[in-house]
Amino acid sequence: MTQTVKLMIAASEYDADMLYATGLFVPDAFVVIHLNGQWHGLFSPLEVDRARKDSSLAHVHLDTPWHEKAGRLGWDGGLEAAAAAFLHEHGVRSVCVPEHFPLMRAERMRAWGFEVAPCSGAIFPERAVKSEYEIGQLRKAERVTRRAMRTAERFLAASSIGDDGILRHPETGEKMKSGHVRSAIESFLITHGAIPSHTIVACGREATDPHQIGQGYLRAHQPIIIDIFPRLLASGYWGDMTRTYVKGKASRDVRKLYLTVRQGQDIGLSMVCDGAHGESIHQSIVRHFEACGFRTEIQRGRQAGFFHGTGHGVGLDVHESPRISTRDDVLHTGNVVTVEPGLYYPGLGGVRLEDMVVVRNDGCENLTRHPRRMEIP
Amino acid sequence: MTQTVKLMIAASEYDADMLYATGLFVPDAFVVIHLNGQWHGLFSPLEVDRARKDSSLAHVHLDTPWHEKAGRLGWDGGLEAAAAAFLHEHGVRSVCVPEHFPLMRAERMRAWGFEVAPCSGAIFPERAVKSEYEIGQLRKAERVTRRAMRTAERFLAASSIGDDGILRHPETGEKMKSGHVRSAIESFLITHGAIPSHTIVACGREATDPHQIGQGYLRAHQPIIIDIFPRLLASGYWGDMTRTYVKGKASRDVRKLYLTVRQGQDIGLSMVCDGAHGESIHQSIVRHFEACGFRTEIQRGRQAGFFHGTGHGVGLDVHESPRISTRDDVLHTGNVVTVEPGLYYPGLGGVRLEDMVVVRNDGCENLTRHPRRMEIP
Repeated sequence: MTQTVKLMIAASEYDADMLYATGLFVPDAFVVIHLNGQWHGLFSPLEVDRARKDSSLAHVHLDTPWHEKAGRLGWDGGLEAAAAAFLHEHGVRSVCVPEHFPLMRAERMRAWGFEVAPCSGAIFPERAVKSEYEIGQLRKAERVTRRAMRTAERFLAASSIGDDGILRHPETGEKMKSGHVRSAIESFLITHGAIPSHTIVACGREATDPHQIGQGYLRAHQPIIIDIFPRLLASGYWGDMTRTYVKGKASRDVRKLYLTVRQGQDIGLSMVCDGAHGESIHQSIVRHFEACGFRTEIQRGRQAGFFHGTGHGVGLDVHESPRISTRDDVLHTGNVVTVEPGLYYPGLGGVRLEDMVVVRNDGCENLTRHPRRMEIP
Repeated sequence: MTQTVKLMIAASEYDADMLYATGLFVPDAFVVIHLNGQWHGLFSPLEVDRARKDSSLAHVHLDTPWHEKAGRLGWDGGLEAAAAAFLHEHGVRSVCVPEHFPLMRAERMRAWGFEVAPCSGAIFPERAVKSEYEIGQLRKAERVTRRAMRTAERFLAASSIGDDGILRHPETGEKMKSGHVRSAIESFLITHGAIPSHTIVACGREATDPHQIGQGYLRAHQPIIIDIFPRLLASGYWGDMTRTYVKGKASRDVRKLYLTVRQGQDIGLSMVCDGAHGESIHQSIVRHFEACGFRTEIQRGRQAGFFHGTGHGVGLDVHESPRISTRDDVLHTGNVVTVEPGLYYPGLGGVRLEDMVVVRNDGCENLTRHPRRMEIP
C-alpha cells in the first residue's frame, strides 16, 4: 500500500491549514510534512525553540541541516530544497500538496525528480466541521465581537445630531466620521484579546458598497452598516457580525429595506440545518427580496440589490467552506457559517444583517445572539 | 515580437503585488492581467464598483461574463477559468505568473491549452526601490510606530516595582503583564490609522525567543523587548522598530549585552549605502559580537546568540527584498531596510534594537530617529 505524504510550505500567520497543523503563529513560510501518520515541521533557528515548546507537531526539526543536505545533493532552492532533502532521506518521491501550493516550488521539486500533485480536495476537510474546542473559540470570538458592537451602539446613542444632519462626537462635539466609531470598536477589541481588520463603518452612499470600510461623515436618518470581524490573538479563530443602524428616524423606504433584509435573514436562519443546500437557502432569500420589490440589477451603472452570497464558513479563516451561495455546498452538523443577506441601492442606502451560527442536526445555534435594532434615538 | 502577458490571482489584502498593481484592498482573491502595457482587473459584482472608483487599474471588468464564457468553453474552474476566458478572447495562450501562483490553477489552465510559467524574478522588481511617495508612506508608518513606542515607554515609566520584582500597573496597581503594554501600544496604533499585528512585548525568558510575543509578567531589572510593526490602514505600508528596556537597573552583564547590540547596530547602520552587500554587513556584526565574547551556538539545547538576519526590506510587505543576511543581496539607493541585530541567551535575556532606514547613495537616512535608551527608572 502506498502512503500519501502531504507537504505544505507557507506562513501559519496567513495560511489557516498551516495554523491548523501546527497551532503556532509563524510570520514567515516554513515546511510541514505529514509522514506515516505524523506531522513533522522544519523550522529556522529563529523559530525552532518556540515550535518545540508551543506547537502541536509530533516532530520539530531544525531546518539548517536539511538545507545543507540539499546543497550537497545539488538542489538549489529555498524551503522546498530543505523539504526535498528531508523527503529524500525518508525514501519519499511523491507528495501531495494544497491546491494553492506555490507553482515555482512545485516545479523545482519536479526538476529534482519528485512527483508533486495537488491533493484532491482540502488538506484538512475536517476543518469545515468544528470540534467542541473550536466552537468554544468561535463562541468566544463572537462574544468579543458582540461586545464591540455594543460599544459602537453606545457611541452612536451618546452622539447628537447637528443642524447639518451630521452626527456630533459625544465628548469633543466635532463632526463624527466613520473613523471615530471604528477606533472605538477596534480599541475595545485590541484590549480584549482580538485583532481587528478593516472594520466597516459605512454610512449613506458608502454603505451601498459592501466592502467599502467607510471614510466619510456619519449622518442622521440614514443607514450605517457596521461589520466587525476580529481574530482571537491567542488561537486565531474569527468572529463576524454585522448590524445596520439609523441614528434618528428611518424614512419609510429605509424601514422597508431594513425589515425586508431582516425577514431575509430570518428565512436563512430558519433553513440552516444538517443537510441543507446552500444554494436553496440563498435562492429563497433572493426570491423573497424580489417578491418585496427589491430586484438585483444594474442601476445608474452600479450593482444594486443583493449581489453577494448569503454566507460563508468561519474558522481559522474568516471566509472558508461551506458557502451559502449559488455555489451549491451542503451544510453539515458542526459547520459554523454566517447568514448575512444585504440590500444596497444607490440613493437609498445599504442594509446588511449578519449572524454566525453552528449548524446542528435539526437547525442552528446562534452564536451572535444580539438584538437587531434599527433606530438609535 | 512576442509580448509577455502577466497573470496574478490572489487577494490584495494578503498579497503585496496585488495591492501594488491595484491600490485597492480586497479580502478575497481576484484576477489581474497585464496586457499590452496595461493592467486589467476582473472583479465580482461585490467589488467591481469599488474597484472602478478606487483602484489604479487602467481597466476594471465585471468577472461574471467571463465565468459564463468559460462555462461555454467547457472550462470548469474558479477564477482561473474566468482569467482563461479573458485571455482566450484576447488571443493570448501563454502567460507568466508569480513564483507563488497557486499550483492547481496553473495545472487547470495548462489542461485547457495555456502555457503557464513562473516569471523569472519578481513580478514588480521595482517594488524594492521605493518612490518618494512610498518613502513618504513608510516615514508616516514609522512615525506612528515611534509614537506608539513612546506610549510604551511612558507606561513603563509610570509603573512601579513590587516587592516581588514584578511591575505594578500605574492605574490599577495590579501585577503588570506583557498584555497590558501591548494593549496600550495597539490602542494607540488603532486610533492613529495603523493596524497592529502580534506586537512583541517580551520579558526575561520570553525575550530570549525572538518571535515570542510575550504573555507573562513584566519584571524589573531584566530586558524587555518591544517590537512594533503596524500597517497603515489607508495605504498598506508598514512601520517596524524594536527597542529593549530595563525597568529599574540593568546588571553588569545585561548592560554589556545591550551595549554590544547597540554597537552592532551602529556598525550595520554605518555600512548601509548604495552597493553595499547584505552579507558583508551581517558578517561584520557577527564578528563584532564574537569579538565581544557573544557566540552564536546551542546552549542548554536552545539557540543562543545572534541567530536571525540583520535586516529585511519593508514596503507593502513587512518582510521583503532585499535582505541583510547570509543571503547575499546588494543594497541600492531607494531600498528601505531594517537594521536589527539581537543577542539572546537563556538565563541572561534578549536584546534587540531595530531601526528602519532608506538606502541613499552615500549612506542611509534613518526613518526611526528614536533614542536607544536602556534603563527606565
